Amino acid sequence: MTDQTNTFPCIYGVNPVTEMLKHQPEQISKIYIRKGGNPRAFGEILREASANRIPVTEVHGRKLEELAGVERTQGVVATITEIGYSEFEEWLEALEPTADTAVLLLDEIEDPHNFGAILRTAAAAGIEGVIVPKHRQAPVNATVFKTSAGTAGRIPIVRAGNLNQAILQLKDRGFWIAGLEQKAEMRLWDCTFDVPMAFVIGNEGRGMRQKTSEHCDFLLSLPMANAVESLNASVSAALVCYEWRRQRDGVK
Amino acid sequence: MTDQTNTFPCIYGVNPVTEMLKHQPEQISKIYIRKGGNPRAFGEILREASANRIPVTEVHGRKLEELAGVERTQGVVATITEIGYSEFEEWLEALEPTADTAVLLLDEIEDPHNFGAILRTAAAAGIEGVIVPKHRQAPVNATVFKTSAGTAGRIPIVRAGNLNQAILQLKDRGFWIAGLEQKAEMRLWDCTFDVPMAFVIGNEGRGMRQKTSEHCDFLLSLPMANAVESLNASVSAALVCYEWRRQRDGVK
Repeated sequence: MTDQTNTFPCIYGVNPVTEMLKHQPEQISKIYIRKGGNPRAFGEILREASANRIPVTEVHGRKLEELAGVERTQGVVATITEIGYSEFEEWLEALEPTADTAVLLLDEIEDPHNFGAILRTAAAAGIEGVIVPKHRQAPVNATVFKTSAGTAGRIPIVRAGNLNQAILQLKDRGFWIAGLEQKAEMRLWDCTFDVPMAFVIGNEGRGMRQKTSEHCDFLLSLPMANAVESLNASVSAALVCYEWRRQRDGVK
Repeated sequence: MTDQTNTFPCIYGVNPVTEMLKHQPEQISKIYIRKGGNPRAFGEILREASANRIPVTEVHGRKLEELAGVERTQGVVATITEIGYSEFEEWLEALEPTADTAVLLLDEIEDPHNFGAILRTAAAAGIEGVIVPKHRQAPVNATVFKTSAGTAGRIPIVRAGNLNQAILQLKDRGFWIAGLEQKAEMRLWDCTFDVPMAFVIGNEGRGMRQKTSEHCDFLLSLPMANAVESLNASVSAALVCYEWRRQRDGVK
């Protein structure tokens, strides 16, 4: 894993590439392996690639490093099909929100690790889509893909030109907007989620922007002990996604 | 942030050092700033260091990089007092478990980012301590400290020679042991936490060890949509900590 924000969507390493070949081969466009590497290490990869008609090219180690943007590739890099963004208007048009629909809005999440972790948890919790602003948002790069454990393609990533505008349009379609805000008096679990919900997760450092916060129907907080001032953005998002999931699944 | 596992506990960067000086100056043993750097950038740091009688030394940039184990230190590195581990037997001896007591057991968490994130969330949720095995566990290094957002010192990190032995001793003291296990039929929120609880979080890749799993009183799972197979270890830990917190805080 690396913080480097290379924009070439790819994954690397024997296990990640093997897993993706097994579960989402359609997302891999090409595989590069190290010239002169031990063929046995790549046996399964070569078999799966062949079965899925994915081209494999032998290249020098340096080329692998360039592609992956890291040094330790374990001799294998797979370039993945561009993860398709959905455009907000079209996506919303096709959506039929019910009480079992929830979406996340990310208000300028900058860390690709957080973005990837949020996509993974949101997909696992059954969130309908993750809405991100077109600008000032971590791009879906190799790090995001890797941190998402390959799940980034399983949940719509929806791009909106203007997040506040998107909020208004979501409201028009029956969504209630809840923002996570540490100073809020209402706790996350004080709220009953029985309408279409849109949850806003703020930026890692500065939280939600003032304007975005004002657009929320209500603000929710998480209690904190030991003078801890905030939680990691991907942790906050996970707590929201799974509190919503808990309520949807019906609890004793 | 970096994956490098330098064992020298330190933090770097103007903001992290300033924050730690303000909130936990007792944890800083020494501050290093870049020779010839802009004194204005370090004004607040120098004032706080002086007020807290923390020695400040000017060094060359290369020395800063060596200390921090990264290149981008922003010209300031603070070495922190070794974060004291608690020894399991002593810690347990002093503990008086009630229905409001919960601890985490980490079964060989390897990624320092995960370890740091778990410490932060556990501290925020009011968990009593985080128990780790003496071996095969990410050490408390600079990365852990940074990922914990400086909260690593606010919750006891308890070292046990043998995790399964520790589980038996916790049981003797009235704890119930719950392991997070994806195949478990009982969901996290199906369980009522009204006794002292110890939650076991498994390793990132292979989950809980078989033996550890057998020592659990019950196993809990989280529902997953979209064929997602697992959650990040720090996300799983967060969901457990805050489900426990939710139940302790009393819910409508």
